[in-house]
Amino acid sequence: MSKGTMRGKRTLKFTAAATLPAGFRAAGIVAGLKKSGRPDMAMFFSERPAAVAGTFTTNQVKAATVRLDAGRVASVGIARGIVVNSGQANACTGKNGLRDAQAMAAHAARQFGVPADHFLVCSTGRIGVPLRMDLILPGIEKLAQAVRPAGGESAARGIMTTDTRPKRFTTTFAVDGRTCRVTGIAKGAGMIQPCMATMLAFLLTDAKVARRAMQKALKAAVDKSFNRITVDADQSTNDTVLMLANGCAGNNALQPGHRDWPAFVAALEGVTFRLAMEMVRDGEGAQKMVAVRVQGARTPADAEAAARSVANSFLVKTSWVGTYPNWGRIMDALGYSPAQVDETKVEMRYGNLLAVKNGLKAGASIEQLSKVAARKEFAITIDLHLGRHAATVYSCDCTEEYVKINK
Amino acid sequence: MSKGTMRGKRTLKFTAAATLPAGFRAAGIVAGLKKSGRPDMAMFFSERPAAVAGTFTTNQVKAATVRLDAGRVASVGIARGIVVNSGQANACTGKNGLRDAQAMAAHAARQFGVPADHFLVCSTGRIGVPLRMDLILPGIEKLAQAVRPAGGESAARGIMTTDTRPKRFTTTFAVDGRTCRVTGIAKGAGMIQPCMATMLAFLLTDAKVARRAMQKALKAAVDKSFNRITVDADQSTNDTVLMLANGCAGNNALQPGHRDWPAFVAALEGVTFRLAMEMVRDGEGAQKMVAVRVQGARTPADAEAAARSVANSFLVKTSWVGTYPNWGRIMDALGYSPAQVDETKVEMRYGNLLAVKNGLKAGASIEQLSKVAARKEFAITIDLHLGRHAATVYSCDCTEEYVKINK
Repeated sequence: MSKGTMRGKRTLKFTAAATLPAGFRAAGIVAGLKKSGRPDMAMFFSERPAAVAGTFTTNQVKAATVRLDAGRVASVGIARGIVVNSGQANACTGKNGLRDAQAMAAHAARQFGVPADHFLVCSTGRIGVPLRMDLILPGIEKLAQAVRPAGGESAARGIMTTDTRPKRFTTTFAVDGRTCRVTGIAKGAGMIQPCMATMLAFLLTDAKVARRAMQKALKAAVDKSFNRITVDADQSTNDTVLMLANGCAGNNALQPGHRDWPAFVAALEGVTFRLAMEMVRDGEGAQKMVAVRVQGARTPADAEAAARSVANSFLVKTSWVGTYPNWGRIMDALGYSPAQVDETKVEMRYGNLLAVKNGLKAGASIEQLSKVAARKEFAITIDLHLGRHAATVYSCDCTEEYVKINK
Repeated sequence: MSKGTMRGKRTLKFTAAATLPAGFRAAGIVAGLKKSGRPDMAMFFSERPAAVAGTFTTNQVKAATVRLDAGRVASVGIARGIVVNSGQANACTGKNGLRDAQAMAAHAARQFGVPADHFLVCSTGRIGVPLRMDLILPGIEKLAQAVRPAGGESAARGIMTTDTRPKRFTTTFAVDGRTCRVTGIAKGAGMIQPCMATMLAFLLTDAKVARRAMQKALKAAVDKSFNRITVDADQSTNDTVLMLANGCAGNNALQPGHRDWPAFVAALEGVTFRLAMEMVRDGEGAQKMVAVRVQGARTPADAEAAARSVANSFLVKTSWVGTYPNWGRIMDALGYSPAQVDETKVEMRYGNLLAVKNGLKAGASIEQLSKVAARKEFAITIDLHLGRHAATVYSCDCTEEYVKINK
């Protein structure tokens, strides 16, 4: 990370709000797709054509929306808006599913008189059932009427499914002496390893950003945020992160080399990281967030594999429900991970307290460790003492509520 | 599988009983290692030196008992008995742990006046805490007094931890005109992917079996049974399968080429498979057993990976708690597995009912599929239509009770 980035980060203020950047409008509505009667559709619209970037699930089974959006991000490169529905995932729906996704985009575009392929589509919900187009098309008309500059909060609620609260952050930064804004709105809990309810995130900025540079910056930001969290090791068919930059701030196009590029990157990464942490905190049934940091690994892949093995072990995650510092289960999960582990070298800390040294209980008492394990958020740091590579994965406890939600 | 094996299997009768083969004694007792006051120690003893075979956890973090036993199976090759304790796993206990395991074996051997390295040791329980040798050593003395030919059932109960019922099967088969017996006694739920409570299994036979041939036959039997089940994808530090053959039946040594070798293999595989199925049925909190069969995979590794991805997905496993046939979650788990999957080719059946064809809903109605998914035991068969390889993994549902047990 360059010094410029660090400087940028220090000066930025992030607010938990869905304040939209200049030139954007948004809304969330009840289209009747959910029995609960809660908001189930949302829309984002940009007054001007916006450069678009995106990252998508790597699941081999991909929703129709993912196929559509990935194609448009790569080949069209410009977007005016995004329409989102919950209730049905539009995955495992074949050609009809793709036709429905195209029809959703076209119907939204028609409301604004813009080209059909300038609209993107996201769905989340049950796999393998057809979209309720009879409800979605009227919903789109309603959304097109409802979108407004102050509608960010409404949209943030419109995309919620099992989320218990909206997830949104905003920050401003200076480019060419003008104030630009980045706002992120997300739902769900995970990207590489998300809960089935799907992870969706939308990043909007009024800065002008060169499209390819934005795609790279978005990918890097996603790797440091959504790709570092896990709720249940399952990866959805629908995970999508989309970024729109409409240039309404009037700056020269941001790209590496621009003096204010680091400030943009810091704003983007700050927003995505905060959204990701909110996802883990709000993981299905979760009561605690635990950062699992593995250091001293022989290779970067080993660090990653060891951290994920611990962060995804259901025996470790269930142990976090209580306050007993069950480091034995963590040793076990390290041992069966693909990473090279020498148990006689393993060191482990709960917060700053030493729990294990040379693979054996050491340092703090169980009572002291229990106080750390009782916190709503804490870190477990594991040093494998086999090399110099490190990785952190953010996870949560697995409560009976998780089973209740998913059964 | 040879025709001989098939013939052997057809004629064998397996009984859910812990009837010991000739020349074996066993017992289970309360040594005070558990707060619950339930039996917590067991012992198996052979009147004669028995050939020994074993398979052990592949976890890099191994209990002291696993290190000790693996060494003795490889280098000593003969055993007189096995002593088992629960409460403490004797894993992550370093040199002191190894010393304790050796002391347990030596103390047991002393009671019978046999060489110290002719006893094997298994532990299960909490990782990282020292063995309560103050209770275990007197327990060993009590066990040495208690072992008797009719003690199989008592031993089967003595090794239980979170098991709700004892797991034991016995069968007889003819060798050289003599009746031989194989009896298996097990606890826990899994081998390659067991619940933390550890999987232990003991196979006893009065047949005379050539040691190396027995080791190979045991490994093959374990691969077809304990290695095909999963409860929670976690692999314990203590998993152990031990087989003792004491030759009390007076037959010529069994090995490939012996006319009755297929009958022995069928007896062994029949017992281990039934024990493995009992483990899944009794998985922590489990109410249902589901066989996940993947066929039409491009490679054997793909078949295995796809079946495990489905069988280990907590979203799939929680969906089995109810009766809704949530095949979308199965498609999702197939998609993120390392196996090659083309969603447009996937076919899926619940029992015999077609649920998915070409990746799309097809065939039976949700109501019909729900009736299958409501059964205590059912099979899901997935055809990837990409090749000719198949694999089956036996799994169970994940209920709120699983979290309760492990939190």
